[in-house]
Amino acid sequence: MKILITNDDGINAIGIKKLANSLKKLGNITIVAPDRERSATGHAITMHQPLRLEKVEYGDNIEAWSLNGTPSDCIKIAIEGILNEKPDIIVSGINNGPNLGTDVLYSGTVSAAIEGAIHNIPSIALSVYGKKRQINYEGAAVHSCNLINVALENNMPNNIVLNVNIPSLNSNEIKGVKITELGIRKYKNQFEERKDPMGKSYYWLSGSIIEIENNDISDVKCVENDYISITPLHFDLTDYDYIKKMKNWNINI
Amino acid sequence: MKILITNDDGINAIGIKKLANSLKKLGNITIVAPDRERSATGHAITMHQPLRLEKVEYGDNIEAWSLNGTPSDCIKIAIEGILNEKPDIIVSGINNGPNLGTDVLYSGTVSAAIEGAIHNIPSIALSVYGKKRQINYEGAAVHSCNLINVALENNMPNNIVLNVNIPSLNSNEIKGVKITELGIRKYKNQFEERKDPMGKSYYWLSGSIIEIENNDISDVKCVENDYISITPLHFDLTDYDYIKKMKNWNINI
Repeated sequence: MKILITNDDGINAIGIKKLANSLKKLGNITIVAPDRERSATGHAITMHQPLRLEKVEYGDNIEAWSLNGTPSDCIKIAIEGILNEKPDIIVSGINNGPNLGTDVLYSGTVSAAIEGAIHNIPSIALSVYGKKRQINYEGAAVHSCNLINVALENNMPNNIVLNVNIPSLNSNEIKGVKITELGIRKYKNQFEERKDPMGKSYYWLSGSIIEIENNDISDVKCVENDYISITPLHFDLTDYDYIKKMKNWNINI
Repeated sequence: MKILITNDDGINAIGIKKLANSLKKLGNITIVAPDRERSATGHAITMHQPLRLEKVEYGDNIEAWSLNGTPSDCIKIAIEGILNEKPDIIVSGINNGPNLGTDVLYSGTVSAAIEGAIHNIPSIALSVYGKKRQINYEGAAVHSCNLINVALENNMPNNIVLNVNIPSLNSNEIKGVKITELGIRKYKNQFEERKDPMGKSYYWLSGSIIEIENNDISDVKCVENDYISITPLHFDLTDYDYIKKMKNWNINI
């Protein structure tokens, strides 16, 4: 099996190393990942500046490259510039922090997996949800192999993404796996104003989560309760229901 | 009416000036736009560097700000840091080039409008589709007012985006308006390798469109035929149909 791995925390992040080591037993691994943290880059791609690709030593039969681009750039250049054959599966992660609810839109981790699905390759995004700042990747690393096997055994379609969030726990502390819907994550955003040494203002975007009671079928509730959450994602934003309502609009010009 | 305008071509782009001048007659306009071109930034937000906000002279009762951030940053800082009240509508554009099919995922113009919908504000993305490099904004500027009025008269929901693509034509050459679905836009991506003066490789992402016959209900076909295309977009990526199929998966751990 040919496995392509990327992430948005950068090629030196702990999560991607744990993932690559865990997946080695499943097949041949190629890593193409950003040269530094590129989280919250959404589905950005780099069209207005040149890309630099560097081969990286990663040991043990893993071919690895770092790119000064976004996670989606990494998938594009891997498929269309580096690999001789399409990979059988793309795995993005393991992300340091959850990707739940509406937040998937901002996520470089999830967007890289969506880029894979656009290229008709089964793609999985893996993220760890922790209640504390210190992340435990052990459960995620152990269960990621099982989840990939289950997905492939069940012939997951090549145009969807499985968005997986795993509790920051040891593998034996995780209670199980649930299929979920994207829940609601709302932030009270704040733009904190500070002054630079020249007395000029600058702003930091910071947001604190607004506590919302999510329902039991949501990804948010699932990981809060120490279960692994799997949400299948599509990428067709057309609102077909609302198209029907718009038939009544008088839009002649 | 309070109108918030942004774009991804930057505050000095022709399209945003044409839009602001066209919408002035509808209400009070605030512009918060990137200080430079930020196209293809998708739904990226800026969390790892400080933001600089500058007041810009724009003339005639238009309050304008430039930000060294992405289009989505502009919407966030406008709503949560600049405006005293929520705007009645957000308009993003007029983009120099189309935003059709899967390309909406990469689009800063569309992502800014989605950010508006996440904040429960009716949001419209406007883009111009041209067969030639030189863009004619005349039709787009004239019809944008009508389209906004029609959307508000029909009480468009505050959690959807209208993705509007307008042919690069004079207003009287445009044949009409159609409600469409996102079509298919596939690219043959190429990473063109070049050598820098030190002899080291760098790559440019470039893509040429693969000609695909889209169906008549698609946004792509609509603008090709000189009609304005309106596609309602949602932002819930959950694949509810596939959730049903996953009920049969044996995912116990």
